[in-house]
Amino acid sequence: MIFLTFTETELRRFTEAVFTAIGCGAGHAALAADVLLKSDLRGIDSHGVARLSGYVRLWEKKRINAQPDIRIVHETLTTATIDGDAGLGLIVAPFAMKVAIEKAKTYGSGWISVKNSNHFGIAGYHALMAVEQDMVGISMTNASPLVAPTYANERLLGTNPMCYAFPAGTYPPVVVDMATAAAANGKLEIAQRSGSEIPEGWVQDASGLSATDPHELKKGGSLLPLGSDKEHGSHKGYGLGAAVDILSAVLSGANYGPWVPPFVAFLEPASDPVGEGIGHFLGAMRVDGFRPVEDFKSHMDTWIRRFKSAKTVEPGQQVVIPGEPEYEAEAQRRQNGIPLIDIVVRDLNELAEKLGIERLSAREIS
Amino acid sequence: MIFLTFTETELRRFTEAVFTAIGCGAGHAALAADVLLKSDLRGIDSHGVARLSGYVRLWEKKRINAQPDIRIVHETLTTATIDGDAGLGLIVAPFAMKVAIEKAKTYGSGWISVKNSNHFGIAGYHALMAVEQDMVGISMTNASPLVAPTYANERLLGTNPMCYAFPAGTYPPVVVDMATAAAANGKLEIAQRSGSEIPEGWVQDASGLSATDPHELKKGGSLLPLGSDKEHGSHKGYGLGAAVDILSAVLSGANYGPWVPPFVAFLEPASDPVGEGIGHFLGAMRVDGFRPVEDFKSHMDTWIRRFKSAKTVEPGQQVVIPGEPEYEAEAQRRQNGIPLIDIVVRDLNELAEKLGIERLSAREIS
Repeated sequence: MIFLTFTETELRRFTEAVFTAIGCGAGHAALAADVLLKSDLRGIDSHGVARLSGYVRLWEKKRINAQPDIRIVHETLTTATIDGDAGLGLIVAPFAMKVAIEKAKTYGSGWISVKNSNHFGIAGYHALMAVEQDMVGISMTNASPLVAPTYANERLLGTNPMCYAFPAGTYPPVVVDMATAAAANGKLEIAQRSGSEIPEGWVQDASGLSATDPHELKKGGSLLPLGSDKEHGSHKGYGLGAAVDILSAVLSGANYGPWVPPFVAFLEPASDPVGEGIGHFLGAMRVDGFRPVEDFKSHMDTWIRRFKSAKTVEPGQQVVIPGEPEYEAEAQRRQNGIPLIDIVVRDLNELAEKLGIERLSAREIS
Repeated sequence: MIFLTFTETELRRFTEAVFTAIGCGAGHAALAADVLLKSDLRGIDSHGVARLSGYVRLWEKKRINAQPDIRIVHETLTTATIDGDAGLGLIVAPFAMKVAIEKAKTYGSGWISVKNSNHFGIAGYHALMAVEQDMVGISMTNASPLVAPTYANERLLGTNPMCYAFPAGTYPPVVVDMATAAAANGKLEIAQRSGSEIPEGWVQDASGLSATDPHELKKGGSLLPLGSDKEHGSHKGYGLGAAVDILSAVLSGANYGPWVPPFVAFLEPASDPVGEGIGHFLGAMRVDGFRPVEDFKSHMDTWIRRFKSAKTVEPGQQVVIPGEPEYEAEAQRRQNGIPLIDIVVRDLNELAEKLGIERLSAREIS
């Protein structure tokens, strides 16, 4: 694989231009670009600009509305349901998190369930919005069905990520941002490209048997929940995925379980939907609703310091604080640029051609 | 192993008598007994009356206060921190959940972090209190350190359970109630008693190597997080355990990580505590803060029906709805009684002798 490196500024320019070209207003285009860039900066390449052409294809199919009228359709002082009007999740979820944060400022906490949305990028982006306000941030989303619950030979749940983010003092925020499947689809795609086998416990084949061929997922197999098999707690990963599905979609009126519309444009949504679009769930709680912010941050630092200095199995290892690798990637990539594989660059430049915007290649820096 | 079966009424009588004998008021004794009985009824034998003598030993060591002054020490309209005054978690957690429910009734949601508490029994009990009010219930607790984070050769986290509970319509509530370790300690104890090996991925030995001998935990080994190893997502189980620890203890001012005091009386708490007692986190959100209750319940029923009717790997299997086996156990045990192994019965009768209360054996029904 060949990597080309781009500046953050250049990728941002390009991404905003794509969203503007499909009809997003300037503010929305900048926000959607910010969410995707944050993913590339944090090293989560599967959720960044590599997905741009996927969003555009869904827009072409009229499954994404570039000018949504996002609105609150039900609320109490600290809860609300938001209708995303089929907008980009990249815009709808930050809108919802802002509502959660405003409620938290006044009442201590805010909780938003979202329907009629689309893929919202990395969960961490939205949870970190709350952290910037000295709040605990929580974000979840359901997603196209790929995961078979324990005992099932059918895809009933998405990789349904959940994220918990906490401010710290001298250390970066602690961000637990994880798919509830044993391995996310991105890892499979890497194995597919390199032609290597995958470990048992990630995928089952179309007959429900454990598979080590990463292509089995595309041949009718399923991803397995976190825990991999019953003996190792796959019912727990399934339970977490179920909780995300219910909070995101049954609470809001979105589609859930096998009815969640696919993220890929070549697959049609179910003909018998049980709700509207996909669902998210976002929450914010003021830290000073529980104790003074400085006390909390100082204890977060103690927590982090203790875990980082833990005895490890191998010499030279260190216990990784959740969110630390992504924080380090961000610092590094802001300075040195963002590497993209050549097939992604080619795909983006085809997109540029189609939409009549300036190609990426001209600004490549190494 | 020999099982003796007791009526719910008899075990409740006995358990209340124990808590009364150590000085709990009548209301508190009845509540604590209710929490333990719920566990035995639901088939979670490791968290029920089998732990009674453990609670009493902690009381003897003055680590449990039988007459706590449980109080709110910090709050906003929808958040609060509660000081459990070293009371039984069995009493402190329901107190906190009641506060969460009252806040939710008025403002839509309520969120309570608890410090200075002790073991709270099954997480499901507290979350189900909210479900009875047509709310989503959430409960978590940290616990004595037994789990080594990914790469660590040290016990830094408890099995830190998290529970999400949702009301349904014609079906029982969906209750996701799970330890964030690959396997809870109870499963190890069963293997220890029967002298059988455990699967790889549950435990590492004192040198950090994968172990199949269930006794390795007592010889300085550690439990592994849900996911078991890095390749299968143990960093996710570790991340969830960390989130529970931070919400329960860093937010409230309880002890966290390796400082959490042990549940067993023969181990002393850390001499350099970072907080008070152990911590819990409890939340309640009104379903009708998001959509009408009947709509939600009707879609919950659709969700459940769809998952129960899923295609399975083996013929005759059925996908299990989270909370369904516990619900069925409860119906069955209310009718047919609660089986206890003989060594637990002996232990309880020794306790009866010590505390001068009526023995269990006389009321045994089969």
